[in-house]
Amino acid sequence: MKEIGANKCFGGQQLRFSHASEVLDCDMSFSIYLPPQVEAGGVAQQVPLVYWLSGLTCTDENFVTKAGAQRYAAELGLAIVAPDTSPRGEGVPDDPEGAYDFGLGAGFYVNATQQPWAGHYRMYDYILDELPALIAKEFPVDCARAGISGHSMGGHGALTIALKNPQRFKSVTAFSPICSPLNCPWGEKALGRYLGPDRGAWEQYDACALVAKSAVQLPVLVDQGTADTFLAEQLKTPLLEKACLDARYPMTIRMQDGYDHSYFFISSFIGEHLAFHAGCLY
Amino acid sequence: MKEIGANKCFGGQQLRFSHASEVLDCDMSFSIYLPPQVEAGGVAQQVPLVYWLSGLTCTDENFVTKAGAQRYAAELGLAIVAPDTSPRGEGVPDDPEGAYDFGLGAGFYVNATQQPWAGHYRMYDYILDELPALIAKEFPVDCARAGISGHSMGGHGALTIALKNPQRFKSVTAFSPICSPLNCPWGEKALGRYLGPDRGAWEQYDACALVAKSAVQLPVLVDQGTADTFLAEQLKTPLLEKACLDARYPMTIRMQDGYDHSYFFISSFIGEHLAFHAGCLY
Repeated sequence: MKEIGANKCFGGQQLRFSHASEVLDCDMSFSIYLPPQVEAGGVAQQVPLVYWLSGLTCTDENFVTKAGAQRYAAELGLAIVAPDTSPRGEGVPDDPEGAYDFGLGAGFYVNATQQPWAGHYRMYDYILDELPALIAKEFPVDCARAGISGHSMGGHGALTIALKNPQRFKSVTAFSPICSPLNCPWGEKALGRYLGPDRGAWEQYDACALVAKSAVQLPVLVDQGTADTFLAEQLKTPLLEKACLDARYPMTIRMQDGYDHSYFFISSFIGEHLAFHAGCLY
Repeated sequence: MKEIGANKCFGGQQLRFSHASEVLDCDMSFSIYLPPQVEAGGVAQQVPLVYWLSGLTCTDENFVTKAGAQRYAAELGLAIVAPDTSPRGEGVPDDPEGAYDFGLGAGFYVNATQQPWAGHYRMYDYILDELPALIAKEFPVDCARAGISGHSMGGHGALTIALKNPQRFKSVTAFSPICSPLNCPWGEKALGRYLGPDRGAWEQYDACALVAKSAVQLPVLVDQGTADTFLAEQLKTPLLEKACLDARYPMTIRMQDGYDHSYFFISSFIGEHLAFHAGCLY
């Protein structure tokens, strides 16, 4: 692991690292914010952490520079880990047409089973196992107290990874998540290529399908802007509302009037999301 | 004036416009944040405003996306106007070698007197007169209650424009300002080319020289990171401290331990700067 960035921010440290990922078979970058509480009294203290999964086209840096989350993390005593959104590098296959919604920057947080993707595109295992093991080994964080959040494709990632592994996360939040990849063009394209035509294999990566069979219920907060141009065709929040109602899953889903799909929306509510996580992690 | 961006943010509106600038003889873009207070009770209310001047290589967008200022502006009821850092467009001459510290992105907030720069590079007049007139005409802001702030080259701009025009601003703050262009390589290069070799002509754009002859004293807050790699050679905060001491100008200059020149530093203290302005504007 190699440090490639370090900036003091709100009394804590915004750090960036590269490392060789065995799961993804390539070098990866991630960012981590360590709040001032880790150095309380000159001794490194373990703090709980929140994983942030970004959306299409993003790297680990978008959230770090645009969300304004460090202020709240510093107040609440949370570390924030932001991974990249796909495997990267010369040997990693990309969409042949360079599309923004498949391949590089668009890993969809699944384990691909189809070639040529299956060799690298295993973001599900990376986020769930390899990255947390590295974080636990290298930083003063308490991985037993972890929350997960994300935006758009990353909101889908946060919801699906947590719903499948409720013992691993104490809280989940999402901004503008892709609620049902089974039922939108982004999902059809990505899961169709990563997982193949058998739609039964897609269900393990569909938040609505997972809600329907969740035995354990987590605290979940979802925010969705009403002026989001992707809402009707791609995100489909009403499908998640219906799935929760049908399964009696008590998820808080808020429609936020006039907000769009941008980081201006995320920055407006990230404080409430981090406070929600802190309430579950402390 | 044409709207080229609009995002709801913290209950207010982050807007972006382009307009034809007569002073700069080119089309310019600027951003403005209007806090929720402008729409209080369904009636547009005039709010005070703060101008933000960015540093080398920036446009109007860096501050808007990275500083996290909207949260505080929404709480405090401040509009924030962020202009670009130089004239722009095909007809505007640039540094022949495309240097980052002269020409496009590096107007230094002066009125150039030397060719080929004098035809477009008049950022001083643009910031002081043309842009405020447009803002007053188009938005529900009270231009009689204005503060000014900025970073690096923009900190130099904020200090010099306000020190020269204390009747126009009620408060001034700066992050990591270039304190004396007369005494650093960035200043030597830029003022030497924009204004010519007569260093007497540079003094009107040098914060230290202006402090020495200021009859009216404004509330001023300056923050400078101790880990800023530009501090010793380019920014030279001690020169400003000495000028204030010699002139008995009561400026608050804070050295912030471990912070660098980045927006992570700005975001950490922009809340205190905006509160400082609000205290003078309300």
